Amino acid sequence: MDCDLDLAVQREQLERAGQAHLLRFWDELNEAERAELLGDLSGCHFAEIMCFFGRALQVPAPLQQQPPQMDEQMEPVPREVQGSVTRDQERLPEWEAEGLLQISENKVAVLLLAGGQGTRLGVTYPKGMYNVGLLSRKTLFQIQAERILKLQQLASAQFGHKCTIPWYIMTSGRTMESTEEFFAKNSYFGLQKGNVIFFQQGMLPAMTFDGKAILEGKSKISMAPDGNGGLYRALRNQKIVEDMEKRGIGFIHVYCVDNILVKVADPTFIGFCVKQQADCGAKVVEKTNPTEAVGVVCQVNGLYQVVEYSEITLVTAQRRNADGRLTFNAGNICNHFFTLQFLKNIVKDYEPKLRHHVAQKKIPYIDDHGQQIKPDSPNGIKLEKFVFDIFQFSRKFVVFEVLREDEFSPLKNADSQNGKDTPTTARHALMSLHHRWVLNAGGHFVDENGTRIPAIPSSTTRMSEAVAAVVNDNLQELTDVPIKCEISALVSYAGEGLDKYVAGRDFRPPLIIDEKGVQELTANGL
Amino acid sequence: MDCDLDLAVQREQLERAGQAHLLRFWDELNEAERAELLGDLSGCHFAEIMCFFGRALQVPAPLQQQPPQMDEQMEPVPREVQGSVTRDQERLPEWEAEGLLQISENKVAVLLLAGGQGTRLGVTYPKGMYNVGLLSRKTLFQIQAERILKLQQLASAQFGHKCTIPWYIMTSGRTMESTEEFFAKNSYFGLQKGNVIFFQQGMLPAMTFDGKAILEGKSKISMAPDGNGGLYRALRNQKIVEDMEKRGIGFIHVYCVDNILVKVADPTFIGFCVKQQADCGAKVVEKTNPTEAVGVVCQVNGLYQVVEYSEITLVTAQRRNADGRLTFNAGNICNHFFTLQFLKNIVKDYEPKLRHHVAQKKIPYIDDHGQQIKPDSPNGIKLEKFVFDIFQFSRKFVVFEVLREDEFSPLKNADSQNGKDTPTTARHALMSLHHRWVLNAGGHFVDENGTRIPAIPSSTTRMSEAVAAVVNDNLQELTDVPIKCEISALVSYAGEGLDKYVAGRDFRPPLIIDEKGVQELTANGL
Repeated sequence: MDCDLDLAVQREQLERAGQAHLLRFWDELNEAERAELLGDLSGCHFAEIMCFFGRALQVPAPLQQQPPQMDEQMEPVPREVQGSVTRDQERLPEWEAEGLLQISENKVAVLLLAGGQGTRLGVTYPKGMYNVGLLSRKTLFQIQAERILKLQQLASAQFGHKCTIPWYIMTSGRTMESTEEFFAKNSYFGLQKGNVIFFQQGMLPAMTFDGKAILEGKSKISMAPDGNGGLYRALRNQKIVEDMEKRGIGFIHVYCVDNILVKVADPTFIGFCVKQQADCGAKVVEKTNPTEAVGVVCQVNGLYQVVEYSEITLVTAQRRNADGRLTFNAGNICNHFFTLQFLKNIVKDYEPKLRHHVAQKKIPYIDDHGQQIKPDSPNGIKLEKFVFDIFQFSRKFVVFEVLREDEFSPLKNADSQNGKDTPTTARHALMSLHHRWVLNAGGHFVDENGTRIPAIPSSTTRMSEAVAAVVNDNLQELTDVPIKCEISALVSYAGEGLDKYVAGRDFRPPLIIDEKGVQELTANGL
Repeated sequence: MDCDLDLAVQREQLERAGQAHLLRFWDELNEAERAELLGDLSGCHFAEIMCFFGRALQVPAPLQQQPPQMDEQMEPVPREVQGSVTRDQERLPEWEAEGLLQISENKVAVLLLAGGQGTRLGVTYPKGMYNVGLLSRKTLFQIQAERILKLQQLASAQFGHKCTIPWYIMTSGRTMESTEEFFAKNSYFGLQKGNVIFFQQGMLPAMTFDGKAILEGKSKISMAPDGNGGLYRALRNQKIVEDMEKRGIGFIHVYCVDNILVKVADPTFIGFCVKQQADCGAKVVEKTNPTEAVGVVCQVNGLYQVVEYSEITLVTAQRRNADGRLTFNAGNICNHFFTLQFLKNIVKDYEPKLRHHVAQKKIPYIDDHGQQIKPDSPNGIKLEKFVFDIFQFSRKFVVFEVLREDEFSPLKNADSQNGKDTPTTARHALMSLHHRWVLNAGGHFVDENGTRIPAIPSSTTRMSEAVAAVVNDNLQELTDVPIKCEISALVSYAGEGLDKYVAGRDFRPPLIIDEKGVQELTANGL
């Protein structure tokens, strides 16, 4: 009965939006399938979707002709709006102090983009739940939670009163439930339940080029999240901005779940942005290879934006300054700062006016006989917005350059794939960073014979050996495991405070330093 | 009989050198084994070896205490002696012209360090014979041979008379025969046999810490090549310098076999060095990550040398200039320039005075019962010299910085290992370079639908997609294969002359451009 009523309403709305084809298998569906399809349909507001579609396709020229035009309009980020951990070393303590002050006054929130499943990692659960094989077996969610905990402690200790960094976590339709369950099961990793706020990004149907939503099964619409820029719509729909306001938040750090090195709520970055009175900021790493697949922060027609590598020509990607550096070298790592006021303006006024981007895709669909077809060439589009689409609305935009080896190692692919951005590279990046923390705090690592291991471990003892001298199997030593060393964020957020654990001491890896103290796993026979 | 005579002589010499233990299983050996052992022994001049050993171990302090001392004495390469393909762009044509002039006058030779077997690649033959899986299935040797051929053609065409770049190839005891056979079987890849000159680097026995050569079997001494710095001794012993002199060579480009991108006899590098009136030069790439396992060219106590990463502390490796760059960033890639005069001085006067480096190793040995033991900790040393040990004797040393993505991708490990410096990374580096050549010459690549592929290919269409939007398996596209494109060195040495093949044309990869012309493999149904 209900179903029939819903159906009548739906049919009328669908007809008005030109989507009646979605019901063409209705008579063949059983109850469960009908309910599934109605469920999908209830998530689609086609009047609005057709409006998005219409606007998105009003692009002046076909995609492949954009690059030369784009190139002419691009300007690099001027030095005046840049901060850099390498070029402004003397100012870092001041910025960090400012950030910690803001944190101590409960002014800082973090916002995690965690809508993605670990599909390319080969798992069906949210990426944040992935265990990258650290000594501690911690997941990305736990690593990030502990960094928040530690920062709260650092700020509290320094300013003498408790403080909170609320953590807003954007999931998607398919990751909401499992994410919430995972946090509950793990007691929010020591954070207060009330300070971890989940919300959900929207989904949009995949469409044919002429604006018909695509059925991937007789009772199933092909749906995907609306891009990480769906953030702003979700913030509005789920009244997240109001929650932030109620808590007195002033500044928000937004980042993506997949970066194992992410400095969540990084006080130096936040302090830099606050001191510059910026309303919007982007953390970047230097792009050093012209063909690296990373978007660059730059100005286009005087407005800040991220230009994706696919939008520029090689000539522009290869442009260099007199000092030899790439002209467009501010590599976007999806790590941003917003003031709450800016976010409010975005959510209320600006974002709704933004057009969606169009991505042509090969989208599996069912034909009129109900057979699923996997097309060989793009047969439809996805609509999406990007989190950085709103940079253009900033009145004071800044860029903060950090070191890749310290802050950026994304987890994207399974180890079995192409060797880039895998669990192994993520794990190695974290262990290498922690190894450096130990050395910089005056500790040393020794091998099984007590001999100090050089600061820079390697796959061979000498580079030249690989070149000419490895002729004898027996003399060859393969030691390409990096030093195994992991320091809990509960002990150190960014390498600080380790002297008392490590100064002047020799350690035999694997080494863990966590809330239980220093543990040499081999020595303990583990 | 012969054996007995030899034995008497050997025994006496061995006793004098404290190596009589090498004969302790003599009575148990059969004829073949005795011949094997005598063969090994005849390659060892123990009087000299003990002298090497004694000098090498006169190191003032234990190895692990060197770094802090070394660090204090290090100075970076001053800008005045540096050339750079990014910072001196306007001077590159002038340098290239000078280099081509020298080549056209038969003044330039190349010297290949190819003593290594492909052990870490998982093969037992010389590395240069490895097929990295290019479309053409060319080996490293063939790629390099064709670059020499092309350069000869370019110089000949420009100056109107034939010229030759002789190619000296240093092998080791274990690679000499197979290397020569391979070249003969392949008709020297189009080069003249008389201009490809093979010679052999020396071998040294592995020694215990107290100076006893190590037996790895009852009739087999543990031997290894004497490091790539064994070059100089081999040049002397095998009268290679005389051969160069006879041919009127003035300048020598030395490089290692494992770099698939190596610009053999690079006229720009040679022209730069000649114009600077340098006697010795090193090509380097910028080191951007402090813990990258690469040696750096620098001054120590005012003398140039390569400091290995294992010799410096992390503090020094992390030092940065005001512009944010690493202070010690001249990454050695084993790619050098020498004048013949400098090489003559080295070979005659300087090199013999150099001490060997000592590398502690776990060296399998046989115990007194004839059982082979694989030790858990270092039980002996290898003695080696490095090709860059002689920088200190240069009177005018220069450094030439090039781009890693254009010129350096070494082949070290099997694909099954850690993902770094593998056949896959080498192949991708070459194809990416050739892809860029095509784009820079005005060509384009299109996909199966005729749509132009963006200049920068990627593992996902959009970086942001990996972050938030990949929730739908069906919408996901895995396209992490780079554009397959290979341009024979016989067509272009460094990207020049491609306009007439590619300008304004669209290509569907895989694409080969070789002496037969442009071949789109898919279009041809291959």
